[in-house]
Formats: sequence, C-alpha cells, structure tokens
Amino acid sequence: MAKHSTNMRIKLPVCCLALEAVTILLFAIFVRYDSDTDASAWHDKLKTSNSSNADNEFYFRYASFQDVHTMIFIGFGFLMTFLKRYGFSSVAFNFLIAAFGLQWSTLIQGFFHGFHDGKIHIGIESMINADFCTGAVLISFGAVLGKTSPVQLIVMTLFEVTLFGINEYIILNVLNAKDAGGSMTIHTFGAYFGLTVSRILYRPDLDKSRQREGSVYHSDLFAMIGTIYLWMFWPSFNSAITAHGDDQHRTVLNTYYSLAACTLGTFALSALFNGEGKLDMVHIQNAALAGGVAVGTAAEMMLTPYGAMIAGILAGMISVLGYKLLSPVLDSKWKIQDTCGVHNLHGMPGVLGALVGVIVAAAATADIYGDGMEDVFPLLADGTRTANSQAVYQLLALLVALSFAIVGGIIVGFILRIPFLGSPPDSECFDDVVYWEVPGEEEHHQMMAVNTDDHEQQTQA
Amino acid sequence: MAKHSTNMRIKLPVCCLALEAVTILLFAIFVRYDSDTDASAWHDKLKTSNSSNADNEFYFRYASFQDVHTMIFIGFGFLMTFLKRYGFSSVAFNFLIAAFGLQWSTLIQGFFHGFHDGKIHIGIESMINADFCTGAVLISFGAVLGKTSPVQLIVMTLFEVTLFGINEYIILNVLNAKDAGGSMTIHTFGAYFGLTVSRILYRPDLDKSRQREGSVYHSDLFAMIGTIYLWMFWPSFNSAITAHGDDQHRTVLNTYYSLAACTLGTFALSALFNGEGKLDMVHIQNAALAGGVAVGTAAEMMLTPYGAMIAGILAGMISVLGYKLLSPVLDSKWKIQDTCGVHNLHGMPGVLGALVGVIVAAAATADIYGDGMEDVFPLLADGTRTANSQAVYQLLALLVALSFAIVGGIIVGFILRIPFLGSPPDSECFDDVVYWEVPGEEEHHQMMAVNTDDHEQQTQA
Amino acid sequence: MAKHSTNMRIKLPVCCLALEAVTILLFAIFVRYDSDTDASAWHDKLKTSNSSNADNEFYFRYASFQDVHTMIFIGFGFLMTFLKRYGFSSVAFNFLIAAFGLQWSTLIQGFFHGFHDGKIHIGIESMINADFCTGAVLISFGAVLGKTSPVQLIVMTLFEVTLFGINEYIILNVLNAKDAGGSMTIHTFGAYFGLTVSRILYRPDLDKSRQREGSVYHSDLFAMIGTIYLWMFWPSFNSAITAHGDDQHRTVLNTYYSLAACTLGTFALSALFNGEGKLDMVHIQNAALAGGVAVGTAAEMMLTPYGAMIAGILAGMISVLGYKLLSPVLDSKWKIQDTCGVHNLHGMPGVLGALVGVIVAAAATADIYGDGMEDVFPLLADGTRTANSQAVYQLLALLVALSFAIVGGIIVGFILRIPFLGSPPDSECFDDVVYWEVPGEEEHHQMMAVNTDDHEQQTQA
Repeated sequence: MAKHSTNMRIKLPVCCLALEAVTILLFAIFVRYDSDTDASAWHDKLKTSNSSNADNEFYFRYASFQDVHTMIFIGFGFLMTFLKRYGFSSVAFNFLIAAFGLQWSTLIQGFFHGFHDGKIHIGIESMINADFCTGAVLISFGAVLGKTSPVQLIVMTLFEVTLFGINEYIILNVLNAKDAGGSMTIHTFGAYFGLTVSRILYRPDLDKSRQREGSVYHSDLFAMIGTIYLWMFWPSFNSAITAHGDDQHRTVLNTYYSLAACTLGTFALSALFNGEGKLDMVHIQNAALAGGVAVGTAAEMMLTPYGAMIAGILAGMISVLGYKLLSPVLDSKWKIQDTCGVHNLHGMPGVLGALVGVIVAAAATADIYGDGMEDVFPLLADGTRTANSQAVYQLLALLVALSFAIVGGIIVGFILRIPFLGSPPDSECFDDVVYWEVPGEEEHHQMMAVNTDDHEQQTQA
Repeated sequence: MAKHSTNMRIKLPVCCLALEAVTILLFAIFVRYDSDTDASAWHDKLKTSNSSNADNEFYFRYASFQDVHTMIFIGFGFLMTFLKRYGFSSVAFNFLIAAFGLQWSTLIQGFFHGFHDGKIHIGIESMINADFCTGAVLISFGAVLGKTSPVQLIVMTLFEVTLFGINEYIILNVLNAKDAGGSMTIHTFGAYFGLTVSRILYRPDLDKSRQREGSVYHSDLFAMIGTIYLWMFWPSFNSAITAHGDDQHRTVLNTYYSLAACTLGTFALSALFNGEGKLDMVHIQNAALAGGVAVGTAAEMMLTPYGAMIAGILAGMISVLGYKLLSPVLDSKWKIQDTCGVHNLHGMPGVLGALVGVIVAAAATADIYGDGMEDVFPLLADGTRTANSQAVYQLLALLVALSFAIVGGIIVGFILRIPFLGSPPDSECFDDVVYWEVPGEEEHHQMMAVNTDDHEQQTQA
Repeated sequence: MAKHSTNMRIKLPVCCLALEAVTILLFAIFVRYDSDTDASAWHDKLKTSNSSNADNEFYFRYASFQDVHTMIFIGFGFLMTFLKRYGFSSVAFNFLIAAFGLQWSTLIQGFFHGFHDGKIHIGIESMINADFCTGAVLISFGAVLGKTSPVQLIVMTLFEVTLFGINEYIILNVLNAKDAGGSMTIHTFGAYFGLTVSRILYRPDLDKSRQREGSVYHSDLFAMIGTIYLWMFWPSFNSAITAHGDDQHRTVLNTYYSLAACTLGTFALSALFNGEGKLDMVHIQNAALAGGVAVGTAAEMMLTPYGAMIAGILAGMISVLGYKLLSPVLDSKWKIQDTCGVHNLHGMPGVLGALVGVIVAAAATADIYGDGMEDVFPLLADGTRTANSQAVYQLLALLVALSFAIVGGIIVGFILRIPFLGSPPDSECFDDVVYWEVPGEEEHHQMMAVNTDDHEQQTQA
C-alpha cells in the first residue's frame, strides 16, 4: 500500500462533509422536537394533562445523560490514550466518530423507535440512546485502534450504527428482551463486531509497529482518567433509560456494588498472575470496569446487591484472565489483533451480563416485584409470558447480538479493506504522525543541549 | 521594564487581600439569601404557596450549574494548558480570576438584577450568572494568555466584570433581547474585549518568546481535557438559565446537535487546509467548540435540530478558516496577538450566534411557539413587539456588545499598562518560571546519568 | 525488612478475595433494598402515600452523589499524583481502598444507621454516606502516601471504616451534633487518624527516598485535575445529605463562596511567604480547598454568605502557613511524616470548621430559622436544647472525633507494623516500581539514540 494513500487532504473532508450534508437533509425532512421539547406541544400538555414543568422528562434524565456523555467522550476517549504515540488519534478520532455516530443513530434509531406521523420525534431519551449507540462503535474502535484511518472509522460508524439499530430493534421490540444497560446490544455486539472487523483486517506484519503498541508512564495516567470516569458513571449508564423511580434507583445501586466488587477481584488476580507479584496497569484500566458490563442486563431487575457483587467480581476475574491467557492466543492463533483487549472488557463480560440476565429473569416472581413488575417485565405483568419463557427470550437475544456482530463485522470488515480509505501501512500503526501535525517534546531539545555540555565537560576533564 | 517588577511578593497579596476584604464587606452589607435559600423564607413559602421541596429552584438548575462550573474551571483552565511551559499559569490563573470574578460579579449583577429592599438576594440562578460572567473574563484571558501578570489579570477581572454587568443589563433588560447562552453578552463581549486589550498591550518584541508559544505532545492532551469538557457540557451552559420545562430541554437538544455537526465541519476543514493532508490539534481543540457559541442566542428558540446543525457546521468551518487565514493577519497587520485564537472560537462564532438569533427571532410565530411564546419572547406573547421588531432589537444588542467590548477594552488596556502591575518582559512570555516555583523534569536528571554512563562505555570501547 | 516481602503475589490476592468473600456473605445475610429502591416496596409506597416517582429520594440526591463520587475517585486520586514516580499507586490504590471501603462502610454504617427488622436497608443516601466514609480513609492515605503497601492500606481501611462508623454514630446520634459536610467526622477524624498512623510508622531513614518526594512539571498538572474537581464539587459534598429544599440549596451556596474567598487567601499567602515572590503549586493544590473543609459543619446553618467567606479565607491562610511553618516542624520534631500535608488541608481546617459550627450553632434563633429550624436543629425546634447547649455538644463532638482519631490511629498504626504486610523499605518509598510493572518513558530511549549520535558526531569532529 503506497504511503501517500494516508493523506487525508481530500478524502476526509469529502467523507465528513458529504455525510454531514446528507444527515442535515434527513434531519430537515424527518426530525422534529418531541412533545417535551417543543414549545407549543409541551405547553399544550401542561394544560391538558395537569402536569407541571417538573414532570418534563428532561429532569428525570438529564443528569444521567451528561454522565453517559462523559463516559463516551472522556471515558472511552482517554482510556485509549494509553498508547505512547497515539494519544491524539485516540481522543480525537473517538471524538469524531462519536460526534458523527450520535447524529446518524438519531436517524436510524428514530426510524425504528420514535417514528410516528412520518416524523422522528426526539428529546432527552433519544439523545441518551444515540450516545449509547456510539458506545458500541467506540468499543469496536478499541479493537482496531491504531490500525485504521479516520475515513475507515467513519465508514465503519455509518454501517455499524445502522446494524446496531436493527439488532437493537429485534432484541428490544421483537423479542421483547430486557437490556437497559446494553450488555447485549452495546457490549456484546460492539466487541464481537470489532473483533470480527479486526480479524478481516488482519495485519501479518504488524510486528513492524509493535514497539509503539505499549504505554509510557504518563500515557498510563491519561488512560486512568478514562478508566475512572467510566467506572464512576457506569451506574448512570445502566440506569439512564430505565423506568422512573425505583428502577433507576435500583439500577444505580446494583451497578455501584458490582463495580466495587469487580475492582477487588481485578487487583487480586492482577497481582496473582504476574510472575513478579506486581500489579499491571492494563488490568486496572480495563478489567476493573467489567463489573459494569456484567450487570448491564440485570441491574434493573431485582438482582439483589450481593448478586450484583458476585456478577462483578466474576467479571473482573474473567477479564484479567482474558488479558493474561486469552489475548495472546487470539492474536497468534486466531489472527485477531485486539489493541485494547475489548474481548476481555466488553466481549466476555457482555456475554456474562446476558447470562446473568437470563438467570435473574427466570427467577422473577410476582412476590418479589409486586406492582413494579410492569416496569421491569411488562409481559410477565400482563401474563403474556412466564419467567422461564422470558429467560429463553433473553438467551435468544444474546444469540441475535452475536450473530449480528459476526456477520455484520465480516461484511463491514471487507468494506474497510478498500485501499482508497487510507489505512496506515503495517510499519506505521499506532503512530499519530500518520494523520496529525505532531509537536516535538520540549525535553528532547533541552536534553540535547544538556548532554552536549555534559559530554564536553567530560572530554575536557 | 526591569525584571524585578515581576516579583509578586507584595503586589499580589495586597491586591488579593484588599479586594477580598472589600468584597466581604460589601457582601456583609448587601448580600442576603433569596427566598429559596433562606431557612425561614423558604418554609414560609412552603406553607403559603402550596409548594413542596421539589419546587425549590435548586433542583431545576443545580446539575446544570455544576456542568457550567466544570466548563469554567476545568474546561477553560485545561484548554489553555496547550502551551508547553505555561500549564501552571493557565490552569491556576484561570482558577484565581474565576474565583475572584464570581464573587465580584455576584455584587455587580446583583445590583442590576436581584436588588430589592436595598439587598442583593442570591441563590442558584445568581451563582450560574456569576459563573457565566467569569466565562467572559476567561475568554479575554485567552487573548492575553502568557503575556500578563496575575495582578494585571485581577485588575482586568475587576473592570471587565463591572462592564459585563452594565452591558448585560442593557442587552437583557433595556433592549429586552434574548441571549440565554451568551453569544453576545459572553462570547462576543469577552472576545472583542480581550482582543482590544491585547492590541493595547501589543508587544513588538514578542518574537523573543515565540519558541515557547506552542505545544508539546502531552500538553496537547491536557488541553483536550478542557476541550472535551467544554464540548460535552455546552448544552448545560446554554440551557442553565432558560425557563423550566421545554425551554431547558430544547436548548440542550439544539446545542447537542449543533456541536456534533460542528465537529464534522472542523475535522473536514482542518484536513483540507493543511498542506500535508494532516489534522491540526489547534483546530480540534478550539474550532470544534464553535458550534456551542453559534447557538448561544438561538438554542432556546424553535431553531429546529437541522437549523442548529447548519449553524454548528458553519461555525466550525469559519473557525478553522480563521485560524488558518485570519489569525496570522491579525497578528502581523493588526498588531493583535491572540494567544488562544479567541477571535476564531468566540469572536466570529459569537457574532454568527447573534445573527442566527436575529433570523430565528424574525421567524417566530404564534403557531410555532403556542403558549410557549411567553417563556421565549414575552414581548411577542403580550403583543408589545412583532417578530421583526424583536429581530431588530437582537441586532442592536450585538452592536451594544461590540461597542462595550471595544471601548471598554481600550480603557482597561491602558490601565493594564501601568508598569507596577508586574507584566513579564517580552523575552519571558509564555513561561511559568516568571511567577512559579517550577520543579524540574525527572527524565532530565535520569537522562544525564544515563548519558554519562553511555558516554563512558563508548569512550572505554 | 527484607526486600522480597513487598512481593504482592500471594498476600494481596488473599487479602482482597477473603475480605470480598466475607463482605458478599454479610451483604447476602444483612443487606436489602430500601423502600425507594425495592420494586415491590416502592410501588406500594406510590399507592399508599399519594406520591409520584419524582418523590423518589433518588432524584433529590443522585446528581450530588455523582459529584461526591467524582471527588472520591478523581479528586483524591489525582490530587495525590503530584509525586513524580508514584502516579500509578496514587490513583490506583486510591481506587482500590475506596472500592473496598465503600462496601465495608455500607455494612458498618448500616448496622448503626439503617438497621431495622434485622436488615440493613440501602439506597442513594447510604451510598453517599459510604462514599463519605471512604473520604476519611483517603485523607489518612494522604498522610502515609508512598510509605505503605496495598495490603497495609486495605487493613487500615478495614479498621478505619469501623472506627469511623462508631465515631460518627456517637457524634450524630448520641451527641446529636450537626456535621453534614463532615468537618469533624470526615476531615478532623481522617486527618488526625492518618497523622497518628504516620507517627507510629515513623521512618528514621526516609531521607533515602526524599529525592522522589516531589513533583515534576506534568505530575503537578495531573494533580491540578484532582484539586479542581475537589474544589468545584465541594458544594455537592457538603450538601449531599442535608435536608431537601432550602438546606441543600443554602449549603451549596455557602460552600461556593467559602471556597472562592479561600482561593484568594491562598494565592495571597503563597506569594507572600515564598522568598522569591513566586507562587507554589503545593499551596494552590491543597490550601485552596481548605475553604470547603472550614464550612463542613456550618454550611447548612444560616452562616450567611459573608460568614462563609470569612471562614474560607481564614482556612486558606492557615493552610498555607501550615505548609510553610508547621509541616517542617511536624516532620523534624514530632516525627510525623505527612506526605500530602493533610494536617494543613484537613486537620487544622477541620478543627476550624468544627469551631465555626460551634459559633453558628450558638447564634441560632427562632427568628433566623423560622420553621426551617426543625431541619437544621431539631432539638432546638422542639425545645429540648438551647442554642448554647447545642454549641456545647458541637464542641464535645470535636473532642470525640479527635480522641477516636488519635487512640484509633495508635492502635491501627501498631497493627500496620506487622512485617508480613509488605511495607516498602525506607530506600524504596514513593516509587511505583515496588508494586507495579512500570513502562519506560519513550523519550528516554529516543534520547539515548539521539545522544549516542550526538556523541559520535562530536568525537568525529
């Protein structure tokens, strides 16, 4: 692949501006304020339904939305800055694809969910869902990090968002499975989609760039900003679109304890599996988050706090084991080059989260949920389903997510192999210099001066 | 200018303590809790007006306030850490002038807005407005960054906050223009004020410090923390003081889509205008935010989502063009040394935002707004004004903001030229060492040891 | 102490997994959802008490909780990254002990506060209290930072959380003192506990590690992330568990102005007391926060805004003086090695905060508080106590906190001296390498290559 093909002068502007133009056009045709956002409609609602401004959906969800927003842009963005020479691309391509993804997913999810009278109606809930959808894309980004051009990433976003919308529709609206925090729709789908794409884009000569596929001291600290934000706000992520009242409250609480237990499990196994009895930052940065993924389906259910903690500690331990034992095998045997280890953070914990959902759904009884059943399992509340049949549908949903991820990943992977898209050569992966004007390091120049002096003093002496 | 004049031992303590003493005294005389904050008054209100604690203004605005607070202290503070040797000053002088500015603006805005019975009554809304006012000062700080002493900055804050209060009063209360997100009162005013001050403080020999007027790899990552927080929380900024219900909700939504579109436009033009087809961090850090400025006036109006996106993408593109084409001319021809490029991020997008406000105000109809007209355009709702006359007042407001900025900037610029204020010499701009105890870099010392060994091995060999 | 004892391979996993297993078991036996979190109970409440989902405690406190959470994990975690080679340990051990501490304190505080029908009932308020308790442990961590193993820290957490629960119970429920922001229960207790532990763990040969007990340029910027987040969100901290309505609102407002005034005082004294007339980052990072501590008891009371500002500026000035004058004496004369200077940030300001509480409680009158008295001073509202007697109880509470801190610190300090716990030798303090796989610095290797070339060119010339 010729080096000049990574020049972004024409292809990136054309790609961004064309897609943005189409998006704006589709918004102009289809997208309208919903009844909580429109001046006239909301004031009609105030009059006719005896409600007050405090009932506006905004106040139930905006704080959670901003936490989710922070996870998407700071959390994912900085988590990926761990690479020593790929910090610009990590945080800024994350920014670019999330900014495009949230617009595109407003349209895609809108056609499937908020479409009536020929229009898509949007408000705080659709904004949260749009951010959620970009989360799946960013997970996939983690698998291909350092090996893809921004044009490839935008094309991937375009297709992945579309597939996400269809997959989500089938899981939530056809199968009527529950998945508020997206163990299946976001984490399982995003991870296996990204891993499949990475497999299709396999680079046999990636060793030429391996010296940059690691961290330096301060890049690990930047990455911890991402980790801690993801960890702290995961309760908001899982609860952002659950029902008002006890549901949001309980989802937050379960996620909080799951993550806390996960953190202990992560530190324990990180120390245990390093020969030298030292901790590894990669585990802390990633595995400690698996507890959020592991309760993404079940946190809104009556999981119990200790149930959440068991799910969390299992997820943390599985995730560390994955980094230690599975990632090298995926790379060498399966030809899956997973830069961030999304299989360990989102893939396996996502599947675990789906299975926890199966078990907790099967255990649902009218006694436990009372009148709250309607919010969590409406089809159990109205007698359409038994707990066991709900559990079967939950399991089916996992299979649907995996299928969409793998089949979709194969198709999109081949699309991304089009040479025109500006992929970096094998010897220039994980390097900001390919796509960025990169400033020098000040220390560098200072140092040369210092050392020259140093040398001269010695030779004189 | 003699070097010893930058010594802060006496002048900074005197300045800080004297102003703080005056501020506390004025607070003691004039400032009181408002009826939602005072123990006795709120409980009286609970009894007499059939309200509940949930109706306290606090719950409608506190989450937004904290987002605004984060933009002011983290957003502005870290955005300016892009300079390689000015990180301490960027984040800490930002901290100092915002901490003083919010107290002083409580008094100034209080005299104009919350003054009754001889007292200023404060609560969450006045706190948001105080933070807003400091935003304007921090924008001006961006123009003079690296070229001013902390004492100069505090003096600038003292005067700029005062002028801000008068300007805002004329725009919002005399002209009855709308400007919830401050395209005019905050961005246009803050930017042109700062640019004018920078012109008055023109340094012909700034080339002596140009080698420090750039970034290093990790300083650009610190700056991205600022960028991303500003970008994420801008919806909270624009909506923080809009009316309850649909207004806050709609303002958030419009700003969200404006910024997303702006980001695509920014990446597109950054790649297009760099000769090498590479992206430039300066554009991503700054121009991607212009979409928030561009809907600062109109986001609370029925702008429509696609209208917001058009405003956003225009702002992003104008801003990149400004960095590429206009900033060098401002510097060389107009003698305006604009360290952070606030003309591109706040100046031109602020004017654009005002003009978008003019257009959307002119398009207001009773059909579109329904009973929500009263919240957005009260003078249209009660028939005092037509949409077109409101548009004219919006335009007048822009002219007022520009006039206050330029005239005020000239006056304050000359005040800041008083030598006593401790301005750094031309050869020591953009350097923390002037005002800070600066630690060395560890690598530096390690390196010397390593290189000495290295050298010895070579000479022995 | 033999070097191999710092190997964490067995002792850390055993410690983490055993404690987590016990915690999960105790949760399974004792911990249940409260009536706002449980599906069945909340829906019963909705029916029987004519409330709506908006009345769920979640909506009054969740935004505050997430701010507190951010202070605990980002604020404390990054504040301590100022050390040049201890960033991994600072942010990650902070993460570990907070994750364990919040679980353990759920149990301990639950037995004292939420225990009825043989069960601990949890929800958003208990989550906030759990985070609060970890705050005290993290303050103590600041005193022993760099000198303790993760196993020691977990053992310290186990005991300190337990003592915290008892101390808090006596102060709040036996003495019926008020301390919403924890000037006494969190700051005074945490600081003096940590200082006592540090005294017991005194290292006479710590000079062997002193070269690492300082910052480098970028570690000071990471620390400022912690500082700014603590500063911004302190209003949420102090108000997180105060009563709904005016109480939360007023607490936020008082804390906001206290911190703003404190910042001016800090900058003033930092410049004044440095011989060279330059500012010191250590003061800005720490003393500027003392204003939050100083109103931790009184911010919910009718302190008045100017009262808050006086408390704040005093705290800032005392804190800078402490760093300048007292810390060296504590170290050399009292053998208290206080890595982060918690005595200056939490100790003295905590005591000041308690005394401010005494004064403001003594000044309480029915006229000032009206019907709001019941929320702030219930025993004054029902006539059980006079304002003066409340003030006496406030003072007693301070003495209780100090006593628990010192006696507890002595006991726990001796426990931590058990050699098995893996404390680092005196020559390896403040160094991540002891407990972490640490990557190199890229510049390092680049530099060696550059310098070798450099050398060769010179020898050839």
